Amino acid sequence: MNYFIVLYILGHILKFEGLFLLLPALVGLIYREYAGFSYLAMAGVCYLLGTLLNRKKPSSQNLYTREGFVTVALSWIVMSIFGALPFVLAGDIPSYVDALFETISGFTTTGSSILTDVEVLSRTSLFWRSFTHWVGGMGVFVFIMAVLPLMGGSTMNLMKAESPGPSVSKFVPRVKDTAKILYGIYIAITVCEIIILCVFGMPLFDSLTTSFGTVGTGGFGIKNSSIAAYSPAIQYTVTVFMILSGVNYTLYFCILSKRLKEAFKLEEVRWYLFIIFAAAFVIICNTRHMYPTLEETVRHSFFQVGSIITTTGYATTDFDLWPEMSKMILVILMFVGACAGSTGGGIKVSRVLIMFKTIRKELSLIIHPREVRRIRMDSHVIEHDTVRSVNVFIAIYFVLLLASSLLISVDGLDFTSNFTAVVSAINNIGPGLSLVGPTQNFSVFSAFSKLVLMFDMLAGRLEMFPMMVMLMPTTWKKR
Amino acid sequence: MNYFIVLYILGHILKFEGLFLLLPALVGLIYREYAGFSYLAMAGVCYLLGTLLNRKKPSSQNLYTREGFVTVALSWIVMSIFGALPFVLAGDIPSYVDALFETISGFTTTGSSILTDVEVLSRTSLFWRSFTHWVGGMGVFVFIMAVLPLMGGSTMNLMKAESPGPSVSKFVPRVKDTAKILYGIYIAITVCEIIILCVFGMPLFDSLTTSFGTVGTGGFGIKNSSIAAYSPAIQYTVTVFMILSGVNYTLYFCILSKRLKEAFKLEEVRWYLFIIFAAAFVIICNTRHMYPTLEETVRHSFFQVGSIITTTGYATTDFDLWPEMSKMILVILMFVGACAGSTGGGIKVSRVLIMFKTIRKELSLIIHPREVRRIRMDSHVIEHDTVRSVNVFIAIYFVLLLASSLLISVDGLDFTSNFTAVVSAINNIGPGLSLVGPTQNFSVFSAFSKLVLMFDMLAGRLEMFPMMVMLMPTTWKKR
Repeated sequence: MNYFIVLYILGHILKFEGLFLLLPALVGLIYREYAGFSYLAMAGVCYLLGTLLNRKKPSSQNLYTREGFVTVALSWIVMSIFGALPFVLAGDIPSYVDALFETISGFTTTGSSILTDVEVLSRTSLFWRSFTHWVGGMGVFVFIMAVLPLMGGSTMNLMKAESPGPSVSKFVPRVKDTAKILYGIYIAITVCEIIILCVFGMPLFDSLTTSFGTVGTGGFGIKNSSIAAYSPAIQYTVTVFMILSGVNYTLYFCILSKRLKEAFKLEEVRWYLFIIFAAAFVIICNTRHMYPTLEETVRHSFFQVGSIITTTGYATTDFDLWPEMSKMILVILMFVGACAGSTGGGIKVSRVLIMFKTIRKELSLIIHPREVRRIRMDSHVIEHDTVRSVNVFIAIYFVLLLASSLLISVDGLDFTSNFTAVVSAINNIGPGLSLVGPTQNFSVFSAFSKLVLMFDMLAGRLEMFPMMVMLMPTTWKKR
Repeated sequence: MNYFIVLYILGHILKFEGLFLLLPALVGLIYREYAGFSYLAMAGVCYLLGTLLNRKKPSSQNLYTREGFVTVALSWIVMSIFGALPFVLAGDIPSYVDALFETISGFTTTGSSILTDVEVLSRTSLFWRSFTHWVGGMGVFVFIMAVLPLMGGSTMNLMKAESPGPSVSKFVPRVKDTAKILYGIYIAITVCEIIILCVFGMPLFDSLTTSFGTVGTGGFGIKNSSIAAYSPAIQYTVTVFMILSGVNYTLYFCILSKRLKEAFKLEEVRWYLFIIFAAAFVIICNTRHMYPTLEETVRHSFFQVGSIITTTGYATTDFDLWPEMSKMILVILMFVGACAGSTGGGIKVSRVLIMFKTIRKELSLIIHPREVRRIRMDSHVIEHDTVRSVNVFIAIYFVLLLASSLLISVDGLDFTSNFTAVVSAINNIGPGLSLVGPTQNFSVFSAFSKLVLMFDMLAGRLEMFPMMVMLMPTTWKKR
């Protein structure tokens, strides 16, 4: 393990976190809240610590896969540890464990909260809380790569570890340019949403925080009733932007480079949209009796489906009161998740597709043993290594799911709450069912269970491997 | 598809079922119950139909993998369809769908019942109900292979489809001899249990049915309170025999051939026992306050753990009232299941081991990319094909689990009941939690949901592939 390079990159992370913390400090200044000082102070601390850590460049700039994974995992942990402090200093979240939970939930774009009443928070903290979604959505390394002339070819190992999905698609040969394009699209979508929300009469502050939560697929609301507090027009807007944010960014890149034919043929995106419409259709039929008008049924169904499949976690209605079938559909959507290469979490539509294609292939092999069949996606052959990594991902996923459910069952909550809390954490969604339903929160759990869920959120956001590598003792041995 | 050979083998199956049905007819004679006549009549019908179907030998005796899988799946379905009729004819289970559910639950050694009161059944039907466990436990093809000079080398494809576990271990070169040894051990264990239960004061009829349910890891009881109605000595005996029946039969073969060293080194069996003791230990600590004495706590813990991990499904206490943590342990044990090459169901300890070893190997590859590592079990290298088939098995398993949970959620039962009912069906256990807990039954479900659960039970018992091959349209195309 090359500790120097890891610490060097951690330095960069802290410096950037320092800069990010200036934003809530500015919000504090505007709203004349004392909380702003805590953020300003922490910004200074982070920047100083960061400068200290990357005072001298490490002699070897080689970043092997192992170091890449460890660096990314550690960076997210360090970012959260420091990002949680201002909540405590500002007095908004007195317990540090709770603040850490909230911050990890923010950066990982989960959106699960331990707060029983978010509306009493200072605007400064509300802003920071939502802004962590935006930082975590596209990923902090993608950001760093876009703006810093970091290291050479080995930076790919960082992006590989942080990007969602079974394989990283490089739009253009240089990593730096890919990162720039990604952030460009990301910022464009965010700005569009802010403007449209403002047009529909949402206050600017609400538009900003809501957009950060939508485009980063996070889900922290600044109202206790999430998005239910706003007008139907706003709810429709958020629905559309949630669904747009769960799309593989390759689609936008294809559209930008005028390869429309390719864009409309993307298998993952087509399935993703098909699943959304199919799920919403069934739920509309299933919940029609619960709402006065068809319009309202349609609106709530699409909102909740979009919110869950993209793993955002906003809500406009208490879906814990829906019939069992609709709830089960949402649970299945929690597993499926958004597209790879989007800001959403979950197993990802492409992994599910590869899984189904593998099953079909193996069954065909039983029926026609001499047939040579390959798994294809968008008419490219899927490499054997990708299939294997999907299988291992799913294996780790279910082991973690069951192990975490067991661990948090010490608190004695019912099976549905335990199980859906873990599903929600691993898939970075936010709400679950029963005691962790959309109108509830995660304050019911003990500190121990919160730590387990924090691990799950990080493991889910970083797609299992980086957090698992951290747990392997051999990782920490000297070469 | 060579339909002739499939029908020919189905003929054999029906003839054997005819013979099996003579046993309950005999019980009817002894207890002077009219129900006996229904069984006698069905025995005749089955034997006649069977003779009709295999009147002439098919010209081509080749049985490819595809035919093997289809034959096994169809055989189990046909066996259940005819095996369910006497329940209706005898008037014990008036609804045919319920009778079919009960029979499939019997043959697949699940042990889930739709009966709200089993004690009103005729002894004849109670006997048949338990005897189906015994037939299904080791498998009807293994039986046929042991007694009939069927086809040549291709019979392996039948055994492959029916035997539990990722790979079939042939003890001796000839399939016929392997089948004989398996049934020899099976009968020996059954007889041992019957004798010991009688010694401890259980009536002969109860000993017979209980032993069929134990050694076949089925779980149908003849009392409404399952095994809670009997003395502690009997409960301990059943515990031991359940655990013995969940062991890979390779162990017994090793012991019989005096290869004791090899026997004690079997990795799967060691882990299986370790899991049982670890789970029971935690549950003892967790439920100590619920029972008056430590002895009773230990007894109930080991009984329930043994019953669930071997997927038997007997109960001595209502574990649905246990603390959440103990219940969660049981749910995890439901997934794990017994050893491969035993009569138990579930994912199987060996598959879980291979899964964990694959995860460890892949993580090691990230840390040391140039290392060559192979997955080993009992110091043999696990072939890549086995690993792949384990992965596909697990993928199908979870797809079926979620799809079935969705389908039966139309009934509107709570999430815990739905989910654990499906887990219980796929793993051939019997009870689940909540509305399908150990003191409840499956009569709460609609006919549609019962059909879904029947499919799951068959898919689970036949280890996914045969039932899935049945669903593929290409299976039914002419070559």
